[in-house]
Amino acid sequence: MRTSIVNSVVPVNLNQKFSVFSDHWRPKVVAELNGQEVKLVKCKGEFVWHHHDEQDELFLVWKGKLRVEFRDRAVELIAGEFLVVPRGIEHRTVAEEEVEVVIFEPAETRNTGNIADDKFTAPDGVAI
Amino acid sequence: MRTSIVNSVVPVNLNQKFSVFSDHWRPKVVAELNGQEVKLVKCKGEFVWHHHDEQDELFLVWKGKLRVEFRDRAVELIAGEFLVVPRGIEHRTVAEEEVEVVIFEPAETRNTGNIADDKFTAPDGVAI
Repeated sequence: MRTSIVNSVVPVNLNQKFSVFSDHWRPKVVAELNGQEVKLVKCKGEFVWHHHDEQDELFLVWKGKLRVEFRDRAVELIAGEFLVVPRGIEHRTVAEEEVEVVIFEPAETRNTGNIADDKFTAPDGVAI
Repeated sequence: MRTSIVNSVVPVNLNQKFSVFSDHWRPKVVAELNGQEVKLVKCKGEFVWHHHDEQDELFLVWKGKLRVEFRDRAVELIAGEFLVVPRGIEHRTVAEEEVEVVIFEPAETRNTGNIADDKFTAPDGVAI
């Protein structure tokens, strides 16, 4: 049993994974651990305002720049910087140019949180 | 209440955080979310063989190269690659030259897992 598990332990190359998709605002699951998921997403433009009742979210910018807006302030992130948005805090992400972002969050997290949005709400659990 | 929480939401720059410590095998907590922690560690040499009964561990190489050894194989990681080591799997990390690694794991995880080691077991919860 252990052997088969170890054989499934394979490295994930972030640049390679980002190269296989091009759609915006559609997170792709690249790993799962401890009930959490690692997701990659490309963003361009303005997302919808939303919050997550029970989930904190980590956004790590891999390439480009991301602005995380709150109702009373905004935080600018460049490549190599991350931000944790605590549960319950309304926010939206904004990218003037395309940005590549690594997300850590609980496995059941909907990208638009409390909002169901025809354009932005992404299917859950899409893995690459 | 929300305002004070949002005011504490500050970006973390990985290069800046790695620049403020130099010891090896001593993880530093840089964020906590959903009962998990993001830790930074510098490694050089061979760690001790160990496993974690209840925790999966993610190792993302930020700078340098890391080898994750299992009893029957090894995985080489370069910068921009990560590996999830599932709970229960014996492993050790090896770095011929200094490597900078981002770890994502549950908050209570001891770096040496089931092993208590005078040299390698690090104090828990050291934040920078």
